[in-house]
Amino acid sequence: MSVLADLLATVFERRYRGASEPDHKNRSIEDLCRDLLGSSGEVSGMALARLILDRYAGMADAEKLEFFRFLTEGMGVDPESVRNALDAFEAGPDRDSYRGFMDAAEPPRQELARRLNQVPGATAQLVAMRADLLRLARDNPALAVVDLDLKHLFSSWFNRGFLVLRPINWSSPADVLEKIIAYEAVHAIDSWDDLRRRLAPKDRRCFGFFHPAMPDEPLIFVEVALSRGIPGAIHDVLSEERAVIGAHEADTAVFYSISNCQSGLAGISFGNSLIKQVVADLSQELPGLKTFVTLSPIPGLTRWLSETRAMLPEEAETRRAVTAHYLLKAKRPDGGPYDPVARFHLGNGASVHAVHAGADLSPNGQKQSGGVMVNYLYDRAQISQNHERFAGAGVIAASAEVTALAAIAAKKTE
Amino acid sequence: MSVLADLLATVFERRYRGASEPDHKNRSIEDLCRDLLGSSGEVSGMALARLILDRYAGMADAEKLEFFRFLTEGMGVDPESVRNALDAFEAGPDRDSYRGFMDAAEPPRQELARRLNQVPGATAQLVAMRADLLRLARDNPALAVVDLDLKHLFSSWFNRGFLVLRPINWSSPADVLEKIIAYEAVHAIDSWDDLRRRLAPKDRRCFGFFHPAMPDEPLIFVEVALSRGIPGAIHDVLSEERAVIGAHEADTAVFYSISNCQSGLAGISFGNSLIKQVVADLSQELPGLKTFVTLSPIPGLTRWLSETRAMLPEEAETRRAVTAHYLLKAKRPDGGPYDPVARFHLGNGASVHAVHAGADLSPNGQKQSGGVMVNYLYDRAQISQNHERFAGAGVIAASAEVTALAAIAAKKTE
Amino acid sequence: MSVLADLLATVFERRYRGASEPDHKNRSIEDLCRDLLGSSGEVSGMALARLILDRYAGMADAEKLEFFRFLTEGMGVDPESVRNALDAFEAGPDRDSYRGFMDAAEPPRQELARRLNQVPGATAQLVAMRADLLRLARDNPALAVVDLDLKHLFSSWFNRGFLVLRPINWSSPADVLEKIIAYEAVHAIDSWDDLRRRLAPKDRRCFGFFHPAMPDEPLIFVEVALSRGIPGAIHDVLSEERAVIGAHEADTAVFYSISNCQSGLAGISFGNSLIKQVVADLSQELPGLKTFVTLSPIPGLTRWLSETRAMLPEEAETRRAVTAHYLLKAKRPDGGPYDPVARFHLGNGASVHAVHAGADLSPNGQKQSGGVMVNYLYDRAQISQNHERFAGAGVIAASAEVTALAAIAAKKTE
Amino acid sequence: MSVLADLLATVFERRYRGASEPDHKNRSIEDLCRDLLGSSGEVSGMALARLILDRYAGMADAEKLEFFRFLTEGMGVDPESVRNALDAFEAGPDRDSYRGFMDAAEPPRQELARRLNQVPGATAQLVAMRADLLRLARDNPALAVVDLDLKHLFSSWFNRGFLVLRPINWSSPADVLEKIIAYEAVHAIDSWDDLRRRLAPKDRRCFGFFHPAMPDEPLIFVEVALSRGIPGAIHDVLSEERAVIGAHEADTAVFYSISNCQSGLAGISFGNSLIKQVVADLSQELPGLKTFVTLSPIPGLTRWLSETRAMLPEEAETRRAVTAHYLLKAKRPDGGPYDPVARFHLGNGASVHAVHAGADLSPNGQKQSGGVMVNYLYDRAQISQNHERFAGAGVIAASAEVTALAAIAAKKTE
Repeated sequence: MSVLADLLATVFERRYRGASEPDHKNRSIEDLCRDLLGSSGEVSGMALARLILDRYAGMADAEKLEFFRFLTEGMGVDPESVRNALDAFEAGPDRDSYRGFMDAAEPPRQELARRLNQVPGATAQLVAMRADLLRLARDNPALAVVDLDLKHLFSSWFNRGFLVLRPINWSSPADVLEKIIAYEAVHAIDSWDDLRRRLAPKDRRCFGFFHPAMPDEPLIFVEVALSRGIPGAIHDVLSEERAVIGAHEADTAVFYSISNCQSGLAGISFGNSLIKQVVADLSQELPGLKTFVTLSPIPGLTRWLSETRAMLPEEAETRRAVTAHYLLKAKRPDGGPYDPVARFHLGNGASVHAVHAGADLSPNGQKQSGGVMVNYLYDRAQISQNHERFAGAGVIAASAEVTALAAIAAKKTE
Repeated sequence: MSVLADLLATVFERRYRGASEPDHKNRSIEDLCRDLLGSSGEVSGMALARLILDRYAGMADAEKLEFFRFLTEGMGVDPESVRNALDAFEAGPDRDSYRGFMDAAEPPRQELARRLNQVPGATAQLVAMRADLLRLARDNPALAVVDLDLKHLFSSWFNRGFLVLRPINWSSPADVLEKIIAYEAVHAIDSWDDLRRRLAPKDRRCFGFFHPAMPDEPLIFVEVALSRGIPGAIHDVLSEERAVIGAHEADTAVFYSISNCQSGLAGISFGNSLIKQVVADLSQELPGLKTFVTLSPIPGLTRWLSETRAMLPEEAETRRAVTAHYLLKAKRPDGGPYDPVARFHLGNGASVHAVHAGADLSPNGQKQSGGVMVNYLYDRAQISQNHERFAGAGVIAASAEVTALAAIAAKKTE
Repeated sequence: MSVLADLLATVFERRYRGASEPDHKNRSIEDLCRDLLGSSGEVSGMALARLILDRYAGMADAEKLEFFRFLTEGMGVDPESVRNALDAFEAGPDRDSYRGFMDAAEPPRQELARRLNQVPGATAQLVAMRADLLRLARDNPALAVVDLDLKHLFSSWFNRGFLVLRPINWSSPADVLEKIIAYEAVHAIDSWDDLRRRLAPKDRRCFGFFHPAMPDEPLIFVEVALSRGIPGAIHDVLSEERAVIGAHEADTAVFYSISNCQSGLAGISFGNSLIKQVVADLSQELPGLKTFVTLSPIPGLTRWLSETRAMLPEEAETRRAVTAHYLLKAKRPDGGPYDPVARFHLGNGASVHAVHAGADLSPNGQKQSGGVMVNYLYDRAQISQNHERFAGAGVIAASAEVTALAAIAAKKTE
Repeated sequence: MSVLADLLATVFERRYRGASEPDHKNRSIEDLCRDLLGSSGEVSGMALARLILDRYAGMADAEKLEFFRFLTEGMGVDPESVRNALDAFEAGPDRDSYRGFMDAAEPPRQELARRLNQVPGATAQLVAMRADLLRLARDNPALAVVDLDLKHLFSSWFNRGFLVLRPINWSSPADVLEKIIAYEAVHAIDSWDDLRRRLAPKDRRCFGFFHPAMPDEPLIFVEVALSRGIPGAIHDVLSEERAVIGAHEADTAVFYSISNCQSGLAGISFGNSLIKQVVADLSQELPGLKTFVTLSPIPGLTRWLSETRAMLPEEAETRRAVTAHYLLKAKRPDGGPYDPVARFHLGNGASVHAVHAGADLSPNGQKQSGGVMVNYLYDRAQISQNHERFAGAGVIAASAEVTALAAIAAKKTE
């Protein structure tokens, strides 16, 4: 592929190499971008796009910042043109006037990104570009407009219909697997042996979404344990000594880790679709699976307690009660659940099923939630209803046990 | 795949099946579209999208027209909102105000199309929907605004970076090959045996662009003959009796047929990229290839002559002279070449290389150009320069021979 | 692949091209075979093998016959050497003496075939060579010893463990499908449209065994109709007007055509394994399938009747009775069933389930069995028992209905 | 695959499960083998084969030894039958008498192995069985006859024409790569990071032969470094700090490690074919490669010196001279080179090109050859001639430099 791409670039980039023609080496990246959007772009587009991406790849942060400022200021919409085009469209709404409006209302940087995307490998480079942008935008809020355009474009490119669900297992390519090690965000994978233990046994599964233009880059992945019954501690899932069971013996699928992989795709949500597709695929393959549940961290618990000047109780039962209370009652200013993982699963239509003390004894688990973990239940008969009530009225679905636990804590607080 | 999709739809569409909930059967497609854009869309999106696409697939033209009118009138931009959002953005250009502008300036029907696209197979259905739309818009010009939105979206989805070039040969799947038979637009393929003759011999190649979401639907394909020297008649290329040569013996690659396949992708250009990619791939595989040339029809010749109240001369040399004159001098009102095939290749940077009388004896060839055909030459050293001059000043590159022929005709005309 | 193979041949065949060395052009195929078995074979084997196979491919039948005579007489076992080696082995049975015996007891033509098989594509050429041999051996019975050696070798190479079951459908490569058309031996496929009707509908399946070294050559294939109930006429299966059902609606899988493809693999049985694998795969994919049955021709019926100076009765019921009698009672001299298709299915453990008059109205069906067809039933609970009784005592399993029918005929005969 | 295999086994193994039939649990493996060779084998073969292989897999060495004794004594040839069949064949050589001879001359254990091979995965299990056999035969020389039969069968099954050359790189499946780590026999791979350094860089290649019936088990693999010039030390090849070059910049391909993977395929040679295929493939892909050379260990040097009561000299030049002498002159009793690696490459037609002191500073390199290594040159123009002279007259091809070095040592020895 890259040999051909090289050749192609060579073949068609005469415009940018010929002696009698303007030397691209002396042209700024801004000029090259303008060329790509102009007439040259039609024929020399691929060579130009490659030049720009290569140029960008070699830049230090200061240069990247300058380039993003150019995109912000020099490749945005012109309000006056939009207004004029809108007036013309309202006065005579037809094909031409609507095209005029569309052209005016979309900033040129969107078309620039589309033209850059011609080159093999460009999609991953553009995603990485947005990761840079998000990082630099923290101190340069004016760049946010460029980010919104890229996010808009990526939402279209990474539309669910274009994603491919692929199992990730011990027969997967090593270059994909090393990314699983790198991207695992919940329970770190500390070696290839550790990875093997999570992928190779018969009662372990892993699935990821991939995009055809970035075939060796997972976008998101979920690790699944097949078990008899719902586990109450991550140790039971990850232990080297645990007894492996046959996949057909399992009655429960446990989603014990979900990791987003691409910071350049921040804000584009894949998790809901991923979980549902995996539930559907596993149900099909293993009809014996009756329960689909997570074993999830509670990343906001300690922080929330410290904000409310409270401490996590020592005693396991009370600790669980306080956690149940937190999951059901602690809110953000906008009224949504305080806990980000709770927000995600409840928004997907799951319910709070059980709370376990002493469930994650890792330093990180102790720090963020005093070792407490939670199961969110994906009950296919309730998902839609749960979601509707949560989205409409903020109602959080919970098991009787969790509700009762929360009530104990509420009582104590009174 | 479709078993899983079925299952998935079943699992998550309770909202639209449950007895106590609004029965989707009584809901109009318009209401379903609004649901899909609303909160329900987050969780029940896949089931909803499938319902809408199935509903659409069962519609007669009158219902489709009504649906497109809804998209035109009920899912367009609201000028007042755009204006307000634009004012706010101009007053304080930041992330929030820009998002407000983006939301207002993009019509909801674009997001609707993206959400419909979640379902496996949806991309092909949406492309077919635009084919319907283009057909119905002929008598309903107001629908053109919906078409522009779909075209905009498809330009992004079918971006060059997402297309895959695949060789099409006698080992290709039958369901792809039957589409080659159906879509061949230049020299009709009249049977599977005819197809075999174009694909199986060692000196024949065919390549198509495919999109990963429509893996068995070619978007465009080109048929290539490998030969010694440049052929001057389509009969020499297609004859059953011709002598087959080894691929490594060829010095010339002849693009003798290029066909767009998807009327729903009208106006989104793939031909330029396809030719360049094929030139690059063939150069890599067969270093002996020195010449890349077309053998092309001249679909506008007869029409243009009749418009100028002229007749195609009987005598071959004069006929060629008149054709050369036509190719170099006949213009559309906008100044571009009169002939559509000439416009395409000249716009790609090719030159008019040779003109042949008696080259296409088929009824269609006789009718459209009196049997005359033309070679356009893709000379890699000249492509960029040719394109620049053509795009900038309308200069048409031609061989000395063709230029001389045209001069003869010009002289006679004087 | 073939480019590399070419190169490889070029690179290593100096021995047979160099000026100072014996010119292979003047060497007979017999000498080349001896070279391949000698020391040269170790390094120049691939080039030599290719030369021999190319030389063979260009031969007329008379030359092939001569070559096979050379294999018969010049590449067979030497009884004296076998005897000596056997004596040595009996006297002192150890590694060396056993190797001596093995070397003496296996004719060199077996090793020759193995060495020829190094070249890409050689396996198919050797299979074709045996097809030639079988044809020529009809008039030259002495060649039968070569055939036995090739058959022995092919039995090992085409061992069940090396075969791959592949579904054949409308997405299969055209070069495989054209072979299905060519090889269909039971109900001729008369066009690509006919083929499409047998492969594309949801209630049709086709499976074939392939060998990895001949990836586009099916060895045997079976066509399957999924239906509700057991069909009693081939017309119901093949009719263009029949109603297509969903695969999940079917309760019965009907094996209505089984064709061996390679005459060079005659005598090596794949059918039993194929049917069992397809039964297993379909059971897994479609749990609703309860009945596995054939709809089979009765190729020996008319011939047997004429041998017994009987006529097939006109009346349908009597016709069926006579057929049932034939299937259960007509024997070959060796005691096996007279009918070859009956022999095959009964040997696999199937039972004679039902007999239908007017079931195959094609000229061939009328001729061979007066239009009568039969269902053989593959009842998984009975297969082993049926087979054991058939293999042991010649007992033919049959349904009560067929048994009763046969009894009627027997009565009339008395 | 294994689900289907399970099912298949279940479906057809009634014979061995039914209550009224002999319970297979009480049957010995010897009886099961006899069943498999008998009539039951036709229908219940797959279930029987699986039972036998499972039974074997659970055996301790003592039981395996007993089983191999059964194969040796109970499944061998019967000399009397062979003699009778041979007499009959000589008396009347025809199809029947030759078949009689073939049946008598081949021991039943060969057919047993073929029937065991029906089950998915059986090929790898049979290869592992021979590895056991070779191990146990060291103390039980009578078992060698079984080994010869398996080796004979495997030579046919693993014929060059059935092997597939596959590149092994950082995109290969992890379960293949972990075997590369395990099987590397020359320069140990000590971690996944080390493996990555050997596979991922642009100037590194690895190729292995695979058999379609054992798709994730390499049979043999070779590691290749692309370089400018011929390296004289393994450190230059494996160093973490070395400068990576582009593949197209290289003029030399260095085979620096070749490892056989399957002890159960001992004595079946793949190396010669592998090197030639890799030379051919690399020549095709990278026309800039002019030199194909090894960087090889000299495993017999120290041992030979100690046998000749000599020491490896300290001084580098003298050390090289002694090594050159060893490579050209040290012989086994049978007249072949003393050094096993030399035997392999010289037998393939390579020449001794250069000798390097201080080339392998690893403990193993120091121990076996005092750190000296050697380049064998694969010069395509000389391979056939080298091989012929070596095979015929034992002539070892060597560069002038190596010949001169050896002469120095010879002089000193005098």
